[in-house]
Amino acid sequence: MEAKEDKMLHKQHEPGDKVKLSTVKEEIEGILLESPEQGVYLIKLKSGYNIGIKKEDVHRLEIVGKKKEEKIASFKHSLNKNLKNIDLIVSGGTISSKVDYETGGVKSLTQPEELLQFYPELKEIVNVRKIISPFSKFSEDMDSLDWKEIAKIAVQSLNDEECEGVIITHGTDTLHYTSSALSFFLRDLNKPVVLTYSQRSSDRASSDAQLNLIAAAKMAVSEAAEVMIVGHASSSDDFCYAFRGTKVRKMHTSKRDAFKSINERPIAKIGEKIEFMNSFSPRDNSKKVKLDDKFNDKIALIKFYPGMDAEIIDYYSRYQGIIIEVAVLGHVAGDEARKNLIPVLRKAIDNGLVICAVPQTIYGRLNPLVYSAGRMLMKTGVIFLEDMLPETAFVKLGWVLGHKDWKVKIKEKMLENFSGEINSRIEK
Amino acid sequence: MEAKEDKMLHKQHEPGDKVKLSTVKEEIEGILLESPEQGVYLIKLKSGYNIGIKKEDVHRLEIVGKKKEEKIASFKHSLNKNLKNIDLIVSGGTISSKVDYETGGVKSLTQPEELLQFYPELKEIVNVRKIISPFSKFSEDMDSLDWKEIAKIAVQSLNDEECEGVIITHGTDTLHYTSSALSFFLRDLNKPVVLTYSQRSSDRASSDAQLNLIAAAKMAVSEAAEVMIVGHASSSDDFCYAFRGTKVRKMHTSKRDAFKSINERPIAKIGEKIEFMNSFSPRDNSKKVKLDDKFNDKIALIKFYPGMDAEIIDYYSRYQGIIIEVAVLGHVAGDEARKNLIPVLRKAIDNGLVICAVPQTIYGRLNPLVYSAGRMLMKTGVIFLEDMLPETAFVKLGWVLGHKDWKVKIKEKMLENFSGEINSRIEK
Repeated sequence: MEAKEDKMLHKQHEPGDKVKLSTVKEEIEGILLESPEQGVYLIKLKSGYNIGIKKEDVHRLEIVGKKKEEKIASFKHSLNKNLKNIDLIVSGGTISSKVDYETGGVKSLTQPEELLQFYPELKEIVNVRKIISPFSKFSEDMDSLDWKEIAKIAVQSLNDEECEGVIITHGTDTLHYTSSALSFFLRDLNKPVVLTYSQRSSDRASSDAQLNLIAAAKMAVSEAAEVMIVGHASSSDDFCYAFRGTKVRKMHTSKRDAFKSINERPIAKIGEKIEFMNSFSPRDNSKKVKLDDKFNDKIALIKFYPGMDAEIIDYYSRYQGIIIEVAVLGHVAGDEARKNLIPVLRKAIDNGLVICAVPQTIYGRLNPLVYSAGRMLMKTGVIFLEDMLPETAFVKLGWVLGHKDWKVKIKEKMLENFSGEINSRIEK
Repeated sequence: MEAKEDKMLHKQHEPGDKVKLSTVKEEIEGILLESPEQGVYLIKLKSGYNIGIKKEDVHRLEIVGKKKEEKIASFKHSLNKNLKNIDLIVSGGTISSKVDYETGGVKSLTQPEELLQFYPELKEIVNVRKIISPFSKFSEDMDSLDWKEIAKIAVQSLNDEECEGVIITHGTDTLHYTSSALSFFLRDLNKPVVLTYSQRSSDRASSDAQLNLIAAAKMAVSEAAEVMIVGHASSSDDFCYAFRGTKVRKMHTSKRDAFKSINERPIAKIGEKIEFMNSFSPRDNSKKVKLDDKFNDKIALIKFYPGMDAEIIDYYSRYQGIIIEVAVLGHVAGDEARKNLIPVLRKAIDNGLVICAVPQTIYGRLNPLVYSAGRMLMKTGVIFLEDMLPETAFVKLGWVLGHKDWKVKIKEKMLENFSGEINSRIEK
């Protein structure tokens, strides 16, 4: 025993090995990373944190498990006739990433099929009929052209009678923008479209990807013909929620249950079974979904704050439309303020800029009638988007402005409830 | 009886009267408002909603109570020696408003003393030694000059040995900006500074002002020498929270418990007594508070979104500093994106613009080291503000840039924890 331990001590370890370090004070177990500092062991703990330990403090280093060799199983098209078929669109993000043992950060999987290799359980719930990966991007790099590309692929799958639903894996950064875009682009939706994610890369024991993917698979073959985000309902690994694509927002940088339903209940709770909690459009396999991905990119999303310069609104006059996150019930600085925004907003609207207001509070609904400030802003022609989320409103504005034939009814279209983006039942 | 009812029917009522309307379907009780439409009774319900009823559907209108005559008691300086003294700064907002029965909206009280008239209970908890009203504004019209004015008045009161604490009544729209500003402007704080608000005007039975004001008074004579917002902890009228001025945000347009603690627990729960829930600086009546209200207004608060044009960053180069609400752990579109923001950010920083990043998710902490996108953004010189709130970061940036002698240590100062604006203990 002693001899073997000696051999393992300070030797033969390489980045990626699972190791146990002993210092006078404690024992630390984790994955060894390449350390940027000499004289320091950098360890990725089970919690996901990295910790640096001075080599001189370590009196013993034991290799608990050797670095796993990367084996990429090729994707085999072996369908189980008792299960329903889904198509998987892999767009990138942490869920299609693994830890890079050289930097301690994460990097993309080289092949989308690797994802299935990490989650063999998925095959017991659904047949993954096809894996399509149009690109592999972290979601902060995506834009409306990527939304269109995903939408096009989804339409092909949804209109294929052998496919019962679609799962899209995606980075979390802009996931709720993409879910909004698909909610508007996919008209007459016939089957479930489920976006899912993970906050921890798939090769990590603490990854949240498995529960999310399995719940996503259950929703993808469910009765809800909705665009949904599926993810952890709490920080435990017990169940997931399915959120309506237009009523969900990333509300935490790193927690597993980062996504929250805003201004309505989630559509469903997904444990062993699915419990529906809110209304949804029912599946209709005989229908065909229609792609309507017209989009005008000359839009911006800005935020009102105290002391905001009126020239900022002037600057945005070069755009076709803007969403302003306004104060509370629907206010910006008015004629009692040193910097009155009302005249410049009126001028911009008179010159053709579409300006919509959403609540900066995120939760709740605009009600510009209560205060004179709101009534003043309303008179400029600003469109008050009820309880719509800023990000959803941004995407919807681009979509509405993309339709040239809607030019005379922009306000009407912004306030038409296309995909559950307005919940008229919540409190004013 | 019949005769009397006949007399009351469709007669003698005026806006402001409490009335009961009977239709075939229902009975409706509320305050009669001046209706913009002929042929319609406009009623303010107890819930605060306005409802319109066609006159032709009303078979009976009973006046339950006549409009209350406005009586303004003059403020009497009668101090109870068994109670502690506080000063009250009245800055405006709904809490100093009442329903305008002509529009159904709310308007400001004509004299700040009216506020005390609505809340006689306050006098059983503290002596209101002075009422100072520098201005009466809805908070969306306020800016940094107003913050300075409030701070100056607060300093005078706090450094007066006869005053144990300060209450500031304020509109909700930008309340958390003002609480941040006071948190930075008031150095070596000696006594409590409590901001409070209401979501419903003070003359309404359903007003939340009473509980908030009473809890504010308890905090103002407490041991916590902190700038705090005090308000409803839930939608019931049972208890309040005291939130740290730099760690609180308005998170709902209209609920009583609109303000939420972000990334830390509230400082205290205030029911009958005060239960402290978090750390605070202790009161020290022998200390003198110092005013440090230097402020640079050439700052802006912007938000990253998919497809954001790089020219927007160029535009903001005319400012001294900007806060960007970035995606999740600290990302913007990078070199994998069609519109790469990294070069323009680098250029702006090289030319002297201070750019700081805060999490768009509101909750959680930035951790730019996890992904290459974050590391890329870090290399441009963007300052990552940990778990700081966007609004707090905006105010802090103006304050730090206001100090010319800090010019060479802006990053250090932005990351120095002056007033609890950074909570290093929360999860990355």
